[in-house]
Amino acid sequence: MTLVTIREFQTSIESIYLAKDSERGVPANVAWLVEEVGELARALRKGEAEEAEGEFADVLAWLCTIASIAGVDLEEVAARKYAHGCPKCLATPCACDV
Amino acid sequence: MTLVTIREFQTSIESIYLAKDSERGVPANVAWLVEEVGELARALRKGEAEEAEGEFADVLAWLCTIASIAGVDLEEVAARKYAHGCPKCLATPCACDV
Repeated sequence: MTLVTIREFQTSIESIYLAKDSERGVPANVAWLVEEVGELARALRKGEAEEAEGEFADVLAWLCTIASIAGVDLEEVAARKYAHGCPKCLATPCACDV
Repeated sequence: MTLVTIREFQTSIESIYLAKDSERGVPANVAWLVEEVGELARALRKGEAEEAEGEFADVLAWLCTIASIAGVDLEEVAARKYAHGCPKCLATPCACDV
């Protein structure tokens, strides 16, 4: 059973990709993120479970790399925003009308 | 300093949103994910740092919710795919020609 913090995963992705990705700049990395989201959407639509697993990982990896280039600690911002349940209604489960 | 595993965050998002999100079905949740990616892209383009932080959190939250509905453990698939560096060249840092 893996136990990986969001920060550990972001740091791993930095070690693998940050030098290359930061040269590319944020807009080009956003384009890559969108491409990966599209691949995830396709795998889900087609019911390709194994392919979808890899695409979930890739979307998270691209989100991490963009966060790193933007100087954002993904773990910190995610934990902060959702620390008290839904950020809008502050309930768990969410009681918003959507 | 927060220490949140990917699994803990996915579980939190399940507690807040899974009942509501799973009723909506995967395609509708993919649409929400894309909407959040768009909001992140806009905040980054405009240099709105605080807004971008919240959008990073939201993209991760939607990715988690879709993973949960698809029965995917985001931590497990992410850790597995990137355990040995770049999944293509197996190097850290990545030595792929892209």
